[in-house]
Amino acid sequence: ARAQSSVTIYGTVDAGVQRTTHVANDATQITRRDNNKLGFRGVEDLGSGLKALFQLEIRYDPDTGALENNTRPLFQGQSRVGLQGNFGTLRLGRGLTAFQESVMAFEPWSGLPNVAGYQTNLQVAGYTSDPLSPAGNSANRFSNAVFYNTPVWNGFQVNATVATKEANGGPAVIGKGTTTAPQYAANANASNNPYSVSATYTNGPFAAMLAAERNAVEAKIWSVAASFKPIPDLKLMASFQRQDQSHTQFINTDTDAWVLGANWTVGVGKVLLGYGQKKPDGVLKTKQASVGYEYSLSPRTYLYLDLSHKRTPFVVTARSDVTQKHYALGVHHNF
Amino acid sequence: ARAQSSVTIYGTVDAGVQRTTHVANDATQITRRDNNKLGFRGVEDLGSGLKALFQLEIRYDPDTGALENNTRPLFQGQSRVGLQGNFGTLRLGRGLTAFQESVMAFEPWSGLPNVAGYQTNLQVAGYTSDPLSPAGNSANRFSNAVFYNTPVWNGFQVNATVATKEANGGPAVIGKGTTTAPQYAANANASNNPYSVSATYTNGPFAAMLAAERNAVEAKIWSVAASFKPIPDLKLMASFQRQDQSHTQFINTDTDAWVLGANWTVGVGKVLLGYGQKKPDGVLKTKQASVGYEYSLSPRTYLYLDLSHKRTPFVVTARSDVTQKHYALGVHHNF
Amino acid sequence: ARAQSSVTIYGTVDAGVQRTTHVANDATQITRRDNNKLGFRGVEDLGSGLKALFQLEIRYDPDTGALENNTRPLFQGQSRVGLQGNFGTLRLGRGLTAFQESVMAFEPWSGLPNVAGYQTNLQVAGYTSDPLSPAGNSANRFSNAVFYNTPVWNGFQVNATVATKEANGGPAVIGKGTTTAPQYAANANASNNPYSVSATYTNGPFAAMLAAERNAVEAKIWSVAASFKPIPDLKLMASFQRQDQSHTQFINTDTDAWVLGANWTVGVGKVLLGYGQKKPDGVLKTKQASVGYEYSLSPRTYLYLDLSHKRTPFVVTARSDVTQKHYALGVHHNF
Repeated sequence: ARAQSSVTIYGTVDAGVQRTTHVANDATQITRRDNNKLGFRGVEDLGSGLKALFQLEIRYDPDTGALENNTRPLFQGQSRVGLQGNFGTLRLGRGLTAFQESVMAFEPWSGLPNVAGYQTNLQVAGYTSDPLSPAGNSANRFSNAVFYNTPVWNGFQVNATVATKEANGGPAVIGKGTTTAPQYAANANASNNPYSVSATYTNGPFAAMLAAERNAVEAKIWSVAASFKPIPDLKLMASFQRQDQSHTQFINTDTDAWVLGANWTVGVGKVLLGYGQKKPDGVLKTKQASVGYEYSLSPRTYLYLDLSHKRTPFVVTARSDVTQKHYALGVHHNF
Repeated sequence: ARAQSSVTIYGTVDAGVQRTTHVANDATQITRRDNNKLGFRGVEDLGSGLKALFQLEIRYDPDTGALENNTRPLFQGQSRVGLQGNFGTLRLGRGLTAFQESVMAFEPWSGLPNVAGYQTNLQVAGYTSDPLSPAGNSANRFSNAVFYNTPVWNGFQVNATVATKEANGGPAVIGKGTTTAPQYAANANASNNPYSVSATYTNGPFAAMLAAERNAVEAKIWSVAASFKPIPDLKLMASFQRQDQSHTQFINTDTDAWVLGANWTVGVGKVLLGYGQKKPDGVLKTKQASVGYEYSLSPRTYLYLDLSHKRTPFVVTARSDVTQKHYALGVHHNF
Repeated sequence: ARAQSSVTIYGTVDAGVQRTTHVANDATQITRRDNNKLGFRGVEDLGSGLKALFQLEIRYDPDTGALENNTRPLFQGQSRVGLQGNFGTLRLGRGLTAFQESVMAFEPWSGLPNVAGYQTNLQVAGYTSDPLSPAGNSANRFSNAVFYNTPVWNGFQVNATVATKEANGGPAVIGKGTTTAPQYAANANASNNPYSVSATYTNGPFAAMLAAERNAVEAKIWSVAASFKPIPDLKLMASFQRQDQSHTQFINTDTDAWVLGANWTVGVGKVLLGYGQKKPDGVLKTKQASVGYEYSLSPRTYLYLDLSHKRTPFVVTARSDVTQKHYALGVHHNF
């Protein structure tokens, strides 16, 4: 009861009509463009500049009302508790890694996990932050982790996430092993502590980022990115990333990807533009061009329209590619 | 944080002691009479008569604390987002169909899904709105749907729900096929877009409804119903419905059902009375008589007592029937 | 909407670094020391001293954001509704049994379910209140139950919990049967109504308790406990309990256990001390010594450190024992 005033309920409901060609289910669907959230968070002032923080975030599919993928943790979005003070912010639990959280500011769809956006498929190049958690789990979070963010010094901040090696009930990863003797057995411990670090810098209209991460099966990814606002209503952005899967793959171990983008505010509307390529070593390139439009009905609610055109191998090892088209029309509401 | 004031938490906890004879588990049970809910909803005023709406509703079994059936979606009750204005209300997501929502006003237990009530077994005659969703899912909702309600014109309103054909992980429906070649395979798309429409009319003490629906395996149901209040404390109601399962069944394709009922407010008490019959083509009739009493402790809380007597085939294809008796005693609390 | 003011959101987030040796996963882990909760509760004043009460409590693992054990009910903590008045408190649903709720006040870790504490392994001696619910379900609650607490008379209170026999989808219990003919089949009814009773007495610095319980497979446990505060900042406590599993076991049917403990408040810190033994009939003894320290940052937030040393059979039937060591360091935050 004493705590009632300290809990904030927040969330997002985003639903629309979408269609993507050349996918397993290419029918017109009611589905989401953004993550749908229902969260609970609070801040307690402990005095002397010290604060206690917690955040618990449910994620769900609005079209069926189910948890994302039916299988994800209740608080898939995050579950963290920690302290904030002059030393920065220190939290324990589950959440976005430093790498994944930092790259979003340099992606024209702000990291929204949809086909028109670039984060899932191109910007992180199919990399997963969490390969040893149950199948269907999210690909950009660490469970069992410590999260640290430094204070911001003259526009400069460093963020670090380190996870324990503890097993989390994941499936076997065959890797360089065999079906009967996989490189990582089911419910395996990590072979090394997963970590994720990023450094960000902001100076007026200019921002830049450098980030690197290693997951529980020792795949590595690094990224460099920058953005610039020539006028306040226009943000231009670019990122480059390289993934190294040589710990679990004999061939096609490296993947390079780059993304260019722009966000242009015009009255109550915002135009999103992006172009990017992904080049896995020895596999066909993926090339994607997307355009989006967000029409604000209020600071909390907008309508959106996305169109995307992607040239991509139909199966990742295939020698031929297809043209995948995507459209989305819907409503996005924050509460 | 800016949204805190816009989220309303609401719900229902209903638990009591019940027993039903001639069912799989005919022991005395602690269970629910009404749906148990914990919901989150909000309305944002966008100006010019336009509003953004969302609603997320958890449903659970109070006796074990589990989600209904252990398998239903987290937001089984509904998960919808949309806009409301002069044009009516338009929402996307998952919720009660227009048919299912409209018939409840003409059922003496107000559509409460319990043995004494008439909706599940008689009024919709065993029909399910959602046959291609996972087993155990609710029988009166569409997922992946668009929901539209017109404004009310002189007491008259039209409601429509249309779902996409997209697959939702459901079990196979053998139908007119065979075990090895079912009419609908597991995780099948709908063979046609499911839809549900209703028209309702209210004029002082009189109300009436006409509704029709077709589900994902093309079973059809329609209903006509009316209610009348000779005095403000007494509501009389009647409904008739016909189901057509000829798309998936060779025999026993049609089912007729009718229900008569009354709600009579006496001081802080309310008496519920009902009688109805269901006649599947070529199968024994089901005849049900129920009486209930609700004693209000406050506008939000009441105690209830139900007694029901049903003559019904023990197995639906059987040539003999049994007399099923049911009693319930419990407490219903809204928050 | 009318109910908004009556819902209180409350909870606990507790996460830290722990290690326990000689267990299946003896790596350093990020995990919890206390139960993590997110709850919703309300009280409605019905007039004349009568109140309606409800409480719904989610329990989760903060390190992964999942429900406890991935399999527990959504409202694992409790889901209850009821009335409170001059007659006491009467509730229906799922919650801690009278036995389990009363013994916690006499355990130096206040019943926190962690390795340093004494409740799970020693105080209730491995007994489970809920053997016929799904595997992984909690061991100290009844589902499908009626909960009654008398008013407090001169420091004296009686609490009783009685559950129905209804089946709840649990696994088979072989007991005195065989694999093919288990004593309790899968999804069996209880062979007798589970019950739990406790009587508590408080008089200034002195408190005492007597409690007994029988579960769905007719295991029985009773306990006697007392505490004394020689000075306000120091609480000394002792408990003894005996379990009888002769209904389902031919041998090793009785288990005795005792626990001594102290809580000592020193400034903003609290020292926890405990020592206890468990002696199953015909099996090696378990002996445990633990020390803990809680450092308060505010009335809602503290840091903790636990150290524990346990001599215990590695496998319960083994003739040799191991020394299990445990440490925990973390933060506990109420909201």
